[in-house]
Amino acid sequence: MRLAELSERSGLPTATIKYYLREQLLPPGVLVSAKQADYGEEHLRRLRLVRALIQIGRMPIATAREVLTAIDDENLDQNDRLGVAVGALPPGLTRPDQDDRATAAARREADLLLDSLGWEDCAEASSGPYRALVAALAALAALGYPHDLDHLLPYAQQATRLAAHDLDMIQECEGPSEQIEAAVALTVLYEPVLLSLRRLAHARESALRHGTRATGRSTA
Amino acid sequence: MRLAELSERSGLPTATIKYYLREQLLPPGVLVSAKQADYGEEHLRRLRLVRALIQIGRMPIATAREVLTAIDDENLDQNDRLGVAVGALPPGLTRPDQDDRATAAARREADLLLDSLGWEDCAEASSGPYRALVAALAALAALGYPHDLDHLLPYAQQATRLAAHDLDMIQECEGPSEQIEAAVALTVLYEPVLLSLRRLAHARESALRHGTRATGRSTA
Repeated sequence: MRLAELSERSGLPTATIKYYLREQLLPPGVLVSAKQADYGEEHLRRLRLVRALIQIGRMPIATAREVLTAIDDENLDQNDRLGVAVGALPPGLTRPDQDDRATAAARREADLLLDSLGWEDCAEASSGPYRALVAALAALAALGYPHDLDHLLPYAQQATRLAAHDLDMIQECEGPSEQIEAAVALTVLYEPVLLSLRRLAHARESALRHGTRATGRSTA
Repeated sequence: MRLAELSERSGLPTATIKYYLREQLLPPGVLVSAKQADYGEEHLRRLRLVRALIQIGRMPIATAREVLTAIDDENLDQNDRLGVAVGALPPGLTRPDQDDRATAAARREADLLLDSLGWEDCAEASSGPYRALVAALAALAALGYPHDLDHLLPYAQQATRLAAHDLDMIQECEGPSEQIEAAVALTVLYEPVLLSLRRLAHARESALRHGTRATGRSTA
């Protein structure tokens, strides 16, 4: 496809695509004349990833280029490419785009999820976590990544188990004020624990499945 | 205790404590003379929370004051105080302090956790998630919040389940490059989903236990 079609199908202005080409975030197309290049589905897919990293993840251009270089490094095996690419992601890339046009649709999806969990009374539309969930779903939808109930429910189930564990931990504190203080502090302090363990678990699970790095004891 | 002892026991310079007093992040002590005030255990505890919010969570002073005001609002019941306080936390407060003196001890704790999971080969000391985990454990230790294996293992277990689910989702993509691109994008895009669902699950679990807000269908 030509640049105009790539722009239309990706929803990105041609100027943005040209900028990504200059910054080597997108590989060049195949030249068909001195001034025209042809792009394939892999360019469309790569643009989607670049948007996830830069527009949603707010990653600096240089860091995104580093991640993409690791993805494309054919001298590494699959598991190492994954390890280097995910390892290059900065921690806490969690500032979803608030101004997405797909917000209304995402709100309906969030409500469907909360309804099916029986949580609809715990999530006021103005609350921070609810708005963060809607923004994250809007980002997933805008970029065409999976975000249906089948994919979201396991997240909600693990979050439920963690919440029960967190509340047990909080109830070890005596007195109502102590408990509220602990809840606030542990909400903040355990978020990086959770995100880093998820990334380490990815590395472990990937090594188990692809069988190239996990030489240690098995947890099975 | 006097200000000097409060400073010694909290590990904070007296100038910092005076600043927190001026900013109303710490309630005043009981005046024992025109120039001296007496502080209690509740001041020590509150200083720990203020450090969690401001030094570790990098929260603006005004936001921290808002959170603390909700914690202290005795017109609200326990569940609502918790809801307002946690609701005022900005999303993604996940930039742990990298320069903490307790880092060496935290690294030993992280290694102990990873060893007991059989993950020791998946976490290179230079990797981002490993360093984020160490920094988070150092922050928990510095502030005296629970972070022993009993508290951390359930987090690791939920992270393991999520990783298996994530890898299944990634393997739906055809081709090695597509899979790596999906892994990178979903690592970034599902982090806010996970953090917001954990906070919503806290609200749900707290309502179930304290019984004041959950009027909807039960998930039980």
